[in-house]
Amino acid sequence: MSPVRDVCVLGLGLIGGSVLRAAVAGGRHAWGASSSQTDTERAAADGFTTCPSAADALRAAAEADALIVIAVPLSAVDAVLGQVAAYAPNCLITDVVSVKRPVAEAVDQVLPGARYVGGHPMAGTAESGWAAGSAELFRGAAWVVGIEEETQVADWQEVAGLALDCGAQVVPAGLDEHDAAVARISHLPHLLAEVLASVGADGGPLALALAAGSFGDGTRVAGSRPELVRAMCEGNRMALLDAVDDALGRLGAARGSLASTGSLAVTINAGHSAREQLMALRTAGHEHVQVDLGEPDALDMLLSYGSSGGRVVALAGKTATVQVAGENGSN
Amino acid sequence: MSPVRDVCVLGLGLIGGSVLRAAVAGGRHAWGASSSQTDTERAAADGFTTCPSAADALRAAAEADALIVIAVPLSAVDAVLGQVAAYAPNCLITDVVSVKRPVAEAVDQVLPGARYVGGHPMAGTAESGWAAGSAELFRGAAWVVGIEEETQVADWQEVAGLALDCGAQVVPAGLDEHDAAVARISHLPHLLAEVLASVGADGGPLALALAAGSFGDGTRVAGSRPELVRAMCEGNRMALLDAVDDALGRLGAARGSLASTGSLAVTINAGHSAREQLMALRTAGHEHVQVDLGEPDALDMLLSYGSSGGRVVALAGKTATVQVAGENGSN
Repeated sequence: MSPVRDVCVLGLGLIGGSVLRAAVAGGRHAWGASSSQTDTERAAADGFTTCPSAADALRAAAEADALIVIAVPLSAVDAVLGQVAAYAPNCLITDVVSVKRPVAEAVDQVLPGARYVGGHPMAGTAESGWAAGSAELFRGAAWVVGIEEETQVADWQEVAGLALDCGAQVVPAGLDEHDAAVARISHLPHLLAEVLASVGADGGPLALALAAGSFGDGTRVAGSRPELVRAMCEGNRMALLDAVDDALGRLGAARGSLASTGSLAVTINAGHSAREQLMALRTAGHEHVQVDLGEPDALDMLLSYGSSGGRVVALAGKTATVQVAGENGSN
Repeated sequence: MSPVRDVCVLGLGLIGGSVLRAAVAGGRHAWGASSSQTDTERAAADGFTTCPSAADALRAAAEADALIVIAVPLSAVDAVLGQVAAYAPNCLITDVVSVKRPVAEAVDQVLPGARYVGGHPMAGTAESGWAAGSAELFRGAAWVVGIEEETQVADWQEVAGLALDCGAQVVPAGLDEHDAAVARISHLPHLLAEVLASVGADGGPLALALAAGSFGDGTRVAGSRPELVRAMCEGNRMALLDAVDDALGRLGAARGSLASTGSLAVTINAGHSAREQLMALRTAGHEHVQVDLGEPDALDMLLSYGSSGGRVVALAGKTATVQVAGENGSN
């Protein structure tokens, strides 16, 4: 295991392009390829190493035993995995797709037994393509690095190391736990924004003319490209259904209470307290704890910290430093 | 009718305090009173004319034939109207409460036959109290000035004139149309933010630790004081129920489609197109049209422009200048 393993990025859109930039900025030797000629040309024009095809990039990856980063939409993952199987089947693989279970299943299907550790940086903008990316996109952001029964600690450490080199903080999480969490804090917010935008527009020009801060904020992400929102939400179907059912239940209860008693106290007090939890988490004091990655229960320890909101902020040798809520924290 | 009618503001919180500041900045002689000693003292310390009680402020209003601005929460409107009835029953009255039909009904009850024209400036922050206010709060904002069958054009013009002096643009609207519109673009967004915050927190510390832009934006207004959100939403019960039913229907349809076909195309395409309508409205080119307030159908004309998203941007003599979407506009 080298701390400076090379990186091969497949897909040079907003996220992949930012990974390539950030990896290079973090001291890695890295190159990329994209099916978009525009993105490839722009990356090359910006001085980055690009290959004319994924096959070329993967041949180089096999030769260098590089870490492969799959940064394509979920719908293109199968095809890319097929190329990995053809050209670099023994490399360590990660990805930056917004759902994890479907990608893991695709890996099992196409490359059974592959060294795969899923990832998901929680960063992005409404923009897309190489031009929208930045080496700083992941600075301070959470980057989930998945842990499953079969995960090898050395592989996990490699992928977490790349995330740290890109400026992110690493959240260890099971793949299903990840998918359930992002359904609630990313995919449901997108869906509610779409619904709110439509209900507002149903009110006609008067309603839209009166719209101010709360409507503007609540509908902002409905401005994202519909195909991206669809790919993200539809790709996480089962977890999103759970989250939608929770929302439907809570909104239905609010409706019932408003209609019968005129009160929204339960809904509004619960929401306010939940929002305060979020803000407390963001302003909480921190402590650092060390996890010895040589211990047999290291990955379980990491999962336990991750599920409580902890983040790995440094890796040195066999030691992971985890930032957890401290004495001034809310939990 | 004087273009410089005095203004008496009852309630010196965020909105009332901003009206007092903006009215004075706009050249009016204005004074205020508040049941909050803190707000009264701060207003006086900032150099504004305050009265020790609403009774004193209203006696001065009666003497000067001032325009009375009721700037208290809906729950306090009845009590304030009782004082108006006692001390200044012949003055023109407006208000800045976020729902209009309940205030109009209170006026009918407490002061039948009063000269009342309801108002609602679409501006605010999550803060409250005098200290949070500003003379600039209404700059460029929409300020609904209500029109009913019995509205006198001269009274409407007085209230619209105050809104313009405060830097706002005037949206003429029926009271029920106003309440229906704000249910969709202000009260429902608050309720969805509360629901989203709770569903996110239901996901535990992992979910909150992964929360980024879409969840932060979508829950921002859940940070507002629960008693203010309750007063606003519960005060607009019937219209909010309609909006909630629309949201429940759309979210339920999305759920059904996701569960059965896996597709969210209808929901996401509709939401994206609605959001684009909003943005198009905000960047649309404008034209100006004149309405002669001396004509018998003047208020109907204003209502018609208002319902299409038009705003009165100037009043001079008997002429209202209305800004409407122009050739570059979206509608």
